[in-house]
Amino acid sequence: MFTEIPPANDAAAGRMTISAIAASIGVSVPSVSKVLNGRSDVAPATRLKIEKALQEHNYQRNARQTGTSASPLIELVFHELDSAWSIEIIRGVEHAAKRHGLSVVLSDFGGRHSPDQRWMDDVAARRPLGVILVLSTLTPAQRRQLDTRSIPYVVLDTDGETQGDAPSVGSNNWHGGLSATRHLLALGHRRIAVISGPQDVLCSRARVDGYRAAHSEAGVEPMADATRWGNFTVDGGYRHGLELLTRPDRPTAIFAGSDMQALGVLRAAREQGINVPKDLSVVGYDDLPLAAWVGPSLTTVNQPLLEMAETATRMVLDMARGIDARPRSIELTTELVVRESTGPAPQ
Amino acid sequence: MFTEIPPANDAAAGRMTISAIAASIGVSVPSVSKVLNGRSDVAPATRLKIEKALQEHNYQRNARQTGTSASPLIELVFHELDSAWSIEIIRGVEHAAKRHGLSVVLSDFGGRHSPDQRWMDDVAARRPLGVILVLSTLTPAQRRQLDTRSIPYVVLDTDGETQGDAPSVGSNNWHGGLSATRHLLALGHRRIAVISGPQDVLCSRARVDGYRAAHSEAGVEPMADATRWGNFTVDGGYRHGLELLTRPDRPTAIFAGSDMQALGVLRAAREQGINVPKDLSVVGYDDLPLAAWVGPSLTTVNQPLLEMAETATRMVLDMARGIDARPRSIELTTELVVRESTGPAPQ
Repeated sequence: MFTEIPPANDAAAGRMTISAIAASIGVSVPSVSKVLNGRSDVAPATRLKIEKALQEHNYQRNARQTGTSASPLIELVFHELDSAWSIEIIRGVEHAAKRHGLSVVLSDFGGRHSPDQRWMDDVAARRPLGVILVLSTLTPAQRRQLDTRSIPYVVLDTDGETQGDAPSVGSNNWHGGLSATRHLLALGHRRIAVISGPQDVLCSRARVDGYRAAHSEAGVEPMADATRWGNFTVDGGYRHGLELLTRPDRPTAIFAGSDMQALGVLRAAREQGINVPKDLSVVGYDDLPLAAWVGPSLTTVNQPLLEMAETATRMVLDMARGIDARPRSIELTTELVVRESTGPAPQ
Repeated sequence: MFTEIPPANDAAAGRMTISAIAASIGVSVPSVSKVLNGRSDVAPATRLKIEKALQEHNYQRNARQTGTSASPLIELVFHELDSAWSIEIIRGVEHAAKRHGLSVVLSDFGGRHSPDQRWMDDVAARRPLGVILVLSTLTPAQRRQLDTRSIPYVVLDTDGETQGDAPSVGSNNWHGGLSATRHLLALGHRRIAVISGPQDVLCSRARVDGYRAAHSEAGVEPMADATRWGNFTVDGGYRHGLELLTRPDRPTAIFAGSDMQALGVLRAAREQGINVPKDLSVVGYDDLPLAAWVGPSLTTVNQPLLEMAETATRMVLDMARGIDARPRSIELTTELVVRESTGPAPQ
């Protein structure tokens, strides 16, 4: 039988007050308070000393006080806002936030994968219920800063190595790559190229691994020199597509890393007078609303972006309420949607 | 020579204190303060009385006090978040906000064109520097509530009647309709249909008027029964397109109200085996990034969404700093971009 035993040093370790911490390192109480509140008017050396003391004493600020009647905030952070993909996530978070009476602060790191100190200070001062990071990473020091301020965070679609025990919501990218490639192999394709995202982004690698696994399962050697790493944009798909489609042994199928990339491949094929799906099959990834409308409509791997965003919001809320999120990492299911852009391999 | 003369009753009218207002209607000072701060724990009747007194005495709260070190907030409000169009506006506001050290709170009214009281209370409590409303309208009472709290607002792309003297940023929709239709007439088209947005939305009407003006200028009678009102979605374009393309005297050109609608028209044409641009020319509206990538790429009217969003942000900031925005209504220029979806009228 499980019996919860409080740690013996609870009062000393967990409950140390701001004034005790200030006294322990010889700084003023307002200085500690300023650092906790994200004020920038504290000397860097003092600031560092205070952060260190807060962490050493395992200081955790009390849950948010309601000094204001405004809806609590949730922070939604993108490493970069791009077209149709981002808006699905924004909509998912907005819907979940509205249901729970929250307001959403939206930030864009302008391409950087980690926040800067200015953002950290803003968050400390705003005291949101929680933070959702999309394709972004916190440094260990930044994670500790959020911890001492009792601000929980969830990573949506991690951009690289799993971040220790950082809670995250993603989708099964490996299985997405597997099912897309199985579909193409079943249609008789034997020269299948793959265009994925950046090689250092975990989801790109997982999809390419799924592509390889499907080949191995079918006893088919993957096409030589036909894996491309790039970015998830239309332009990336266009450039890689053009290169692949103008080589002498051109592929009969291309599995793209996003619907946007697939759109670029379709354009490259049109320019080369290659008919999709008669001469070339194309599979996208994401299943954005436009995938059903472009011509030909895209066979693609559905990634439940709205649901992922809603799940991340719920998770961060649970954590804010002191409910430990278990499991801390959730992968939602991906699913192949077959439309017009794939067909039997040309004879 | 212009000399500024302060109004004689400045002290009495403009500078009435909260306690004077409270005394004048027999309520407590904290009650007035609560209403100003968007707290909901004030009886509705009292609340109403206080709002009325604030307006009668022309009360204007002092500019935002900096009790916190967080970046000032700007509120960005959509009547509804939809795919590629919204993200362009979000990006424009994010960029301008970052340049000015602001954070953005994003809200979605879920299809309603006016905010609810909950949102009004949140805004009163958050005290943002300003508000940008996209395709949304404030009721006169809501406008007065923002005025008494000294929170300026700008309407981006007004959805209907101009809102008195509400500052706004839009683009020249009438001219967009004119240039799109001139282009089609010059290509020899004489049966040109137009699909626009909702009839009660000002920009839809302006574009259709531009379409008519181009016909009148060319001495050509607009095609009979060929104006369709709907929504700006792909599905709307598809349904109207299908109906127009299956009538016996089908149009040789369609001017759509958005790129999304144009995408729907392209799909309807494909399903009917009608070649674009050989048998049918299609013009879109907006010039979203994907317009250049779809097949055929879209001839479309460029609406400078990023620039409109940046202009609205700057305008609201100027107002927050006490600089009167002149002119209060700005229309940016639209421009026709010719791509693959238009060609000479079929013989």
